[in-house]
Amino acid sequence: MSQSDFKQAPHKLLLIPGPVEVADDVLLANAHPSMSHVSPDFVPVLGDCIRMFRDVILAPESQPIITAGSGTLGWDHVASNVIEPGEEALVLNSGYFGDSFAECLEVYGSKVTQIKAPIGSKPSLEEVEAELKKKKYKVLTFTHVDTSTGVLTDAKALGDLVKRVSPETILVLDGVCSVASEEIRMDAWGIDVVLTASQKGIGCPPGLMLLAASKKAIKAYENRKTKPNSYFSSWSKWLPVMKAYESGTGAYFATPPTNLIYALHASLTTITKGKTSIEDRWAQHIAVSDQVKNFVKDLGLKQLVADPSKDGAHGMTAVRYPEGLKAPDVLPKMVARKIVVAAGLHKECKDEYFRIGTMSESVVNKERGDIDYLLKNLKEALEEAGYRK
Amino acid sequence: MSQSDFKQAPHKLLLIPGPVEVADDVLLANAHPSMSHVSPDFVPVLGDCIRMFRDVILAPESQPIITAGSGTLGWDHVASNVIEPGEEALVLNSGYFGDSFAECLEVYGSKVTQIKAPIGSKPSLEEVEAELKKKKYKVLTFTHVDTSTGVLTDAKALGDLVKRVSPETILVLDGVCSVASEEIRMDAWGIDVVLTASQKGIGCPPGLMLLAASKKAIKAYENRKTKPNSYFSSWSKWLPVMKAYESGTGAYFATPPTNLIYALHASLTTITKGKTSIEDRWAQHIAVSDQVKNFVKDLGLKQLVADPSKDGAHGMTAVRYPEGLKAPDVLPKMVARKIVVAAGLHKECKDEYFRIGTMSESVVNKERGDIDYLLKNLKEALEEAGYRK
Repeated sequence: MSQSDFKQAPHKLLLIPGPVEVADDVLLANAHPSMSHVSPDFVPVLGDCIRMFRDVILAPESQPIITAGSGTLGWDHVASNVIEPGEEALVLNSGYFGDSFAECLEVYGSKVTQIKAPIGSKPSLEEVEAELKKKKYKVLTFTHVDTSTGVLTDAKALGDLVKRVSPETILVLDGVCSVASEEIRMDAWGIDVVLTASQKGIGCPPGLMLLAASKKAIKAYENRKTKPNSYFSSWSKWLPVMKAYESGTGAYFATPPTNLIYALHASLTTITKGKTSIEDRWAQHIAVSDQVKNFVKDLGLKQLVADPSKDGAHGMTAVRYPEGLKAPDVLPKMVARKIVVAAGLHKECKDEYFRIGTMSESVVNKERGDIDYLLKNLKEALEEAGYRK
Repeated sequence: MSQSDFKQAPHKLLLIPGPVEVADDVLLANAHPSMSHVSPDFVPVLGDCIRMFRDVILAPESQPIITAGSGTLGWDHVASNVIEPGEEALVLNSGYFGDSFAECLEVYGSKVTQIKAPIGSKPSLEEVEAELKKKKYKVLTFTHVDTSTGVLTDAKALGDLVKRVSPETILVLDGVCSVASEEIRMDAWGIDVVLTASQKGIGCPPGLMLLAASKKAIKAYENRKTKPNSYFSSWSKWLPVMKAYESGTGAYFATPPTNLIYALHASLTTITKGKTSIEDRWAQHIAVSDQVKNFVKDLGLKQLVADPSKDGAHGMTAVRYPEGLKAPDVLPKMVARKIVVAAGLHKECKDEYFRIGTMSESVVNKERGDIDYLLKNLKEALEEAGYRK
């Protein structure tokens, strides 16, 4: 067979907030023959990925780091390179992932203060401003989209706030569930670290941690009084390696996951050099998100996000089960229709809702018809479970 | 096309000490459609990998951990879970990777003593015994095969020594370049941690860290007075997740690299359930290693390993350039013949030698004819460079 004939095997439609459906060319790239990680064939592939990642988050000034891992590993990068033991971190908590980022920061010695919002909402700018004025925070972290709740935090407003109130604070955007599906203008908004993973908006299989650091974040790392207190996440190791790959020469610290880098190259090429701009891509995600949110509203269902028009993410929707129905009444009926959506994740209410992921391939490749198929079957599954509006 | 028709694209023959050539079924598995990491379809796939990894290292008593990462990340696991800050670690240094493991241990607070062997050899058992008697070491680490030098360390003898002289010491085998290519009997030999990566003897693309911990190692972790001082590597996170996957229920800490897990499942299935036993696999690696080592000897070339018959690895060979020739005289001529071998890696002599990797698919799949093709072309390339025996 010719490589260009490759089509992925038939499978259930995956519409969870990551991993997401992946294009055939990305999967074929993941089946690339083995390559030396320091060969002249491979080095520019990773170099291109570094450059293209900057284009996805509009961050020409930033230094990306791309390694094997997952979004979780991005927290270790922040906690062990940007902030030092004993320094203060402010964590904005809009769901499960705020708790976890806070825990990671504490493992590496940060003193953490959290502003916890009620489930389905986010800390207000007024609360954040008041807290930033109380003491000198080395870092401020927020979950751009909390995958457990579907709450979107206003990154631009936080960038403006930090510039105005606490300009030395390193502003960290956890973009695991937002990069390439939500508007992010890292440089213009004054974001200092964007961290993410490969299996959501970027449209790749899971297995990669992607991070970008501003000049301010790099300076904070360079000005450390103590050495980075992790090894696999240490910027003293990765910064020279990333610079070497970008300049076209290989370097070694840990073997890069070469096949996933080829897959990433394919997906980033589509995102940054395809027919549509990154702005168009954000707009496509908004349109599909609106379509899903309006559909569930018309069905008479409520969302976990208190005010979806203001705080709702555009790559996922967290939907409350209608009264009387629970996960076992609904999710297996979706699976029977060859659709996988996700159960709830937030520990305080995980049995009360389910999550629909609408990112990347299912959104931008209209020919697949994934969204129409989802909505038609969601309605039928609920009706079969006995739900009437 | 049918999935079973999949053949990887034509490419240069990769014979470096990892990544290695990968079988078509493994690459096709790496192109598996996206799957939910907690779905009933995927959970048993990772569960099987955990069970099969035990079979590769003959460690039915051990607890495996498999995550996104690389061999390097395995050091973080040891340094932040098994040993506590201020405790003593003894590192046996047979090349580049001993230096790095020692550095990683120090990052997490261990007090490290190294026994450094001259390049091309390993610390003697007498030296190790004398050092173990000097003080109480919490861990003893060794690089089973140092990828920079091709030196093989005698794991069984070290297991016996520790049992006799310092039975409380946790014995850590860095098996990045040895698992599934060298004989390892973890339980019988008294090895407490085996750590490795996916892209060498296991015959998978890179991107996975695989580790197995003995009951003694788990007990050392459980008896810590301090919490693990890493997050992405914390056993407090991974042990419950691994137990959940093995028991058939999903659990979440960080998203597993689902596609690589499918690829690993394919390769481990071949290794543990294929036509040949793991003992046969070791023997195949010895036979091919002997063939390569005898061939270069007959060509009049020397190896980096001082005594290859005693200390030589069976999955790689480090060959000194003949007098008057250097890397640019030889390696490009191999590339012109569509073969990629590796440059030297040890910082003190990296320009004096090159490395040939003979692990996994190129060894066990004789039909490929990789080894004969290698040896024929190596001879021709050297002759073309002006070398005569």
